[in-house]
Amino acid sequence: MVPFRRAILALQGYIPGEQPKEKGFVKLNTNENPYPPSPKVTAAIYEFLSSSSLALYPPPLSDTVRQKAASVYGVPEEWVLVGNGSDELLDLVVRVFVEKETRVVYPVPTYTYYRVLTLIQGGTPYEIPFPEDFSLPREFVTASGHLKFLCNPNSPTGTFIPPEDVERVLEASSCPVVVDEAYVDFAPSSTLPLLERYENLIVVRTLSKSFSLAGLRIGFLFAHPYIIRELVKVKASYNVNILSQIGAYAALEDFEHARENIRRIKKTREWFSQRMEELGFFVYPSEANFVFVRRKGINLFFLYEELKRRKILVRYFPEWPDALRISIGTDRDMELLCAHIENILKERSHV
Amino acid sequence: MVPFRRAILALQGYIPGEQPKEKGFVKLNTNENPYPPSPKVTAAIYEFLSSSSLALYPPPLSDTVRQKAASVYGVPEEWVLVGNGSDELLDLVVRVFVEKETRVVYPVPTYTYYRVLTLIQGGTPYEIPFPEDFSLPREFVTASGHLKFLCNPNSPTGTFIPPEDVERVLEASSCPVVVDEAYVDFAPSSTLPLLERYENLIVVRTLSKSFSLAGLRIGFLFAHPYIIRELVKVKASYNVNILSQIGAYAALEDFEHARENIRRIKKTREWFSQRMEELGFFVYPSEANFVFVRRKGINLFFLYEELKRRKILVRYFPEWPDALRISIGTDRDMELLCAHIENILKERSHV
Repeated sequence: MVPFRRAILALQGYIPGEQPKEKGFVKLNTNENPYPPSPKVTAAIYEFLSSSSLALYPPPLSDTVRQKAASVYGVPEEWVLVGNGSDELLDLVVRVFVEKETRVVYPVPTYTYYRVLTLIQGGTPYEIPFPEDFSLPREFVTASGHLKFLCNPNSPTGTFIPPEDVERVLEASSCPVVVDEAYVDFAPSSTLPLLERYENLIVVRTLSKSFSLAGLRIGFLFAHPYIIRELVKVKASYNVNILSQIGAYAALEDFEHARENIRRIKKTREWFSQRMEELGFFVYPSEANFVFVRRKGINLFFLYEELKRRKILVRYFPEWPDALRISIGTDRDMELLCAHIENILKERSHV
Repeated sequence: MVPFRRAILALQGYIPGEQPKEKGFVKLNTNENPYPPSPKVTAAIYEFLSSSSLALYPPPLSDTVRQKAASVYGVPEEWVLVGNGSDELLDLVVRVFVEKETRVVYPVPTYTYYRVLTLIQGGTPYEIPFPEDFSLPREFVTASGHLKFLCNPNSPTGTFIPPEDVERVLEASSCPVVVDEAYVDFAPSSTLPLLERYENLIVVRTLSKSFSLAGLRIGFLFAHPYIIRELVKVKASYNVNILSQIGAYAALEDFEHARENIRRIKKTREWFSQRMEELGFFVYPSEANFVFVRRKGINLFFLYEELKRRKILVRYFPEWPDALRISIGTDRDMELLCAHIENILKERSHV
């Protein structure tokens, strides 16, 4: 037996949502976009494959995508880092700031990967419960630590903290504050404009949700160059493959395509949320491409399971057994889901 | 200013070989394959793009590629981990075994990324010089540590340690031993068959060199399942994008295509090595897709620079100023290079 680090042996790894091997599922469990990405993405990849070679290493800093992201998001190029999905970028941040005896602060419930990343580094997670209404926990503003995370909109709840409140955290904290904006394109506003004024702000984005590109693994990190510089030291030389670089550039060129899908998803989210309330669920107000629905005190595992039997996948977290996280699919997906839920609940009239 | 880890601030990151932005270079600096990958790779990616969506997350463990690699390399599926290039896999290994006060042992000169990875974790590199003939350093067998690396064939020298000698390291070491076989397809034999007998052996491979797929970022790690299990905890959920998974599978299906290119490259390597000797260089015996050529005591920066001016890129490492690492290109590339070198040396007759 070889000598693993203790922190690793003790670790419970992050468990991603199921990727069913069978076809035919309505997949509402990992917040994927139900609409295809811009056709320009595929076209650009075709074009690359027909004219260039896969035998060459990709640009280490994904230069063209980086420049494009800088111009689209209105920051200088040196303030951008392109990653193999936003997960890689979150990981890099933790590796640069966290080690044994350092403290990582974030409100819970939230994306459990922050906890996993902290424990991998041997750091100490300091978890602050959100208040009932999922507004900013006062203690999150004042707590001291070496790194703070705020998932905004938050997963799994979909709730949103307005940038004015995030600003209070930035002002009160001497440590870096990561605002994970994976879902922000479905929300009213971003913290990105605060970047110039707060040198401890790190904003992380992804093309996985609003741009329908989860398969390509493209994330962006925005921060002051003195932070980017240290992150670059830790990242692998060629972290983003060439086809994803090509695809990401094309996607950013056609932002309007994503915007149109965002509009559709938000519209579906509104009527679906209302329908779920009518079906007796508490629905957290969502600014993301999913909703968190709850029946206080009732374990919803049966509902998750019965839906799965009927080929609809939603997300059940054992940590929050009386709730389900449901991604927003097409109108048709959601109609189908509502009909099944209604049907299942009727059958189990004790619920 | 926010509190970076000291190890990171002190770190000199790994510097990858230049990726020229201008076109028209003969690129012999990063050991890329001069021949294109199997046409089946492109065909498979086309096929995927025309029939499936990029909006879905890829399989977290790259299942189909993993199964294919298991069958191609003759190990059970649970013994394989697919990575975003072999660099990601090397990184995962270091994160699982190395922390403050642990020691990482490897012979030098070698791939400098081992040093960078060790320092990122706050570990201590223990570097053992290769003997003049680049055979196995005796101290590498006996030294104690928490992790050992052996790049085999070695970069930048191209020299090769036969598996019988690697076996001595495995037998004498209680720690895991990583054999980085990025270049092994150009060598006579692999340590992979030793895997069954040594539970401390970790073998790392890549499709970047022999399969002409540096652009896709695909690496494989082979080890006992008890090691794979811990590595999986640390890796990001969706570490390999879907197009690279599709392409890697197709490449492994057409191993014969790679084999043919390997044969050509080895043939070129033989005559090129001889020509370089005739031009007055010491040429380390290479079992890789590059050669390390030396003029003892003479700084070869001028040659690197003059070649670059003539649009040929080779690799100059400031740490080994009297040598150059030259990737094996096509016969035509190498003829051109030889002609230029001859010409440059003539002009500077003092060399």
